Amino acid sequence: MFEYNLIARDAATLARAGAFSTPHGTLLTPVFAPVGTQATVKTLTPRDLREVGASLVLANTYHLYLRPGTERIRDFGGIHAWMGWERPMLTDSGGFQVFSLSAIRKVDADGVTFRSHLDGSTHRFTPENVVQAEENIGADIIMCLDECADPNNRAYIEKALERTHAWAARCKAAQARKDQALFGIVQGGIYRDLRLESARTLSALDFPGYAIGGLSVGETKEQMYETLDYTTPELPPDKPRYLMGVGAPEDVVEGVARGIDIFDCVLPTRVARNGGLFTRQGRMNLRNSRYEDDPLPIEPGCDCYACQNFSRAYIRHLHKAEEILGLHLATVHNIRFMTRLMDEIRAAILDGTFPTYREAFLAEYKITDQAVRHAQAEARMKSRLQKATNKQKV
Amino acid sequence: MFEYNLIARDAATLARAGAFSTPHGTLLTPVFAPVGTQATVKTLTPRDLREVGASLVLANTYHLYLRPGTERIRDFGGIHAWMGWERPMLTDSGGFQVFSLSAIRKVDADGVTFRSHLDGSTHRFTPENVVQAEENIGADIIMCLDECADPNNRAYIEKALERTHAWAARCKAAQARKDQALFGIVQGGIYRDLRLESARTLSALDFPGYAIGGLSVGETKEQMYETLDYTTPELPPDKPRYLMGVGAPEDVVEGVARGIDIFDCVLPTRVARNGGLFTRQGRMNLRNSRYEDDPLPIEPGCDCYACQNFSRAYIRHLHKAEEILGLHLATVHNIRFMTRLMDEIRAAILDGTFPTYREAFLAEYKITDQAVRHAQAEARMKSRLQKATNKQKV
Repeated sequence: MFEYNLIARDAATLARAGAFSTPHGTLLTPVFAPVGTQATVKTLTPRDLREVGASLVLANTYHLYLRPGTERIRDFGGIHAWMGWERPMLTDSGGFQVFSLSAIRKVDADGVTFRSHLDGSTHRFTPENVVQAEENIGADIIMCLDECADPNNRAYIEKALERTHAWAARCKAAQARKDQALFGIVQGGIYRDLRLESARTLSALDFPGYAIGGLSVGETKEQMYETLDYTTPELPPDKPRYLMGVGAPEDVVEGVARGIDIFDCVLPTRVARNGGLFTRQGRMNLRNSRYEDDPLPIEPGCDCYACQNFSRAYIRHLHKAEEILGLHLATVHNIRFMTRLMDEIRAAILDGTFPTYREAFLAEYKITDQAVRHAQAEARMKSRLQKATNKQKV
Repeated sequence: MFEYNLIARDAATLARAGAFSTPHGTLLTPVFAPVGTQATVKTLTPRDLREVGASLVLANTYHLYLRPGTERIRDFGGIHAWMGWERPMLTDSGGFQVFSLSAIRKVDADGVTFRSHLDGSTHRFTPENVVQAEENIGADIIMCLDECADPNNRAYIEKALERTHAWAARCKAAQARKDQALFGIVQGGIYRDLRLESARTLSALDFPGYAIGGLSVGETKEQMYETLDYTTPELPPDKPRYLMGVGAPEDVVEGVARGIDIFDCVLPTRVARNGGLFTRQGRMNLRNSRYEDDPLPIEPGCDCYACQNFSRAYIRHLHKAEEILGLHLATVHNIRFMTRLMDEIRAAILDGTFPTYREAFLAEYKITDQAVRHAQAEARMKSRLQKATNKQKV
């Protein structure tokens, strides 16, 4: 159980193909996990998820802790039975959500006190009760409680890192179930020495897998790539490496080149619901009027249900008419885009052609403008904080 | 084409089982049509619709005329190709929406002028251009333009009925396509003499099918049943009869007993999205906290995807968490409930056991309180008018 088998390594990059065994099946890596925050990947049934080729699904401890409660999920036989998904699952620790969703929180050496974004009620996470919550939920891969801080604030990050390392050791000590793989999370912002220290400290704790957290939270793509360049080589080669919250197609290709095995991100599902659709040429915005008479599928050649059955014009109509089917079809396509991308990446690594594949993909794929992405992320964060503030009547 | 074959008639009631041939297949009647107002049955793919056993889907001329435009649908090969549904379809004329959705409208002998509820723009429907729009859309069954008036205002209904009859003749004259069945619509409110006059006038025009309109719009259930009691016997026995906008389970059973072959209604899909789920015992409200730990399927014994795979507790969680999958699963169940009901009704008619089936169904099924239903309908209408008024900046 939880054995990582390295199957092939690219000669020119750090890319690697592997297999990671879990109680609900073996994950072929590199793999992309769609996000099912509230025990559902938005708009998709488990059957849809299987059909688009998803092998790993992420759920969120913070959200499930607040609603429906982790004891309830435990009493229903765990998250797999609760949501009807029989393949591997992963839960994050909820740490990231405490730091991004809750307008009021107080961190101390022992844990973090925060207010629910739903009703303003006060709660506390400690390494021990988060592991308990994740054991209640029962995913195959579970994460240590960590503190995710502003990547550019060195003074704060140093303190946060100390807590994150102490919490990792406490999470490991608290783990009672042996059928879940507890991953440590490397933090350290964009500071090389802190990342290396974090990687070494956690490696010494001998986790069955390692995540890299605190990226894709405001730093530039170049900073993220550079951080990966020096961080992954410090992680044990015989354990899977998980880059948390990263999932733009170009970042997945670049992450694989830097030795990452597992990715998750809300991006493919979230942009789908706004009419943003992935194609090999880049992201297209289906709400654009240029598509109103377009008889082509979203992406010619794609084998997903949306592309096999509907025109861009019809799916655009559904989005303009605010029909749920439009959100569903766009999500189906974007997740299928990601799973095909991962399949192709893996095949290229096995064939020894990954560098060529990477170059060809990046030459064709037009990256969404960084300024646009940052503006979107900021607007999202502002609206979340606003909501949280309103609900808490602060 | 458009032949109605009477297969069996119940000895004690007016219930009948038949088969109605259309260019996209033969409809076995009695049949219930889910409503796909904007060329999509909300939250369902065509594949889902086939799986829940839907054989006929209704789309709305008023909505499709405004968005995406009927010429666009025509240019894509018609509604079946546009939305990916290869079984029979029906379009209403849009008359009902003009009278219920548009805050400003002016009826004259020639047609009706109205403002779009989307942007306040001015439009005009005449019998001729509505038939043209329905020919562009290309459903198998299309409806005459009619005027739907307050069922209790006799003076107004008399005038409206005159227009409805004149428009029916003009619709028939305007029809160019021979591969669509144009149905006449019997009006007349709750007035026996007017309903009989309407049924006879339209019968003389020799349509391939007849609808009964202007019911389920504010009158009591008893008034509706009584109206059917004297209206259907006046319609030609060799043509299908369609009761427009009716679809509460008890009303379908009672409608069949009064000789109705085709039903449509938004009720099963709309209440599903509010957490209202049909069972043989009546409607259950899944948002109720009594279901938060309930491991049972929505309706034990149901063969739908929702009941086969998920607990009430999980689907309730999805509704409370405002997850789209909750709306989808509830819709799947309610449509499957309706198609199973129709299958059982038809089998009972063929077996000669319909009266027993009807009695057993009504004894078990707790009817949602009339006062509750009326309050809901009024709130809905008020909110619609409010929206329309706001958009038109009147």
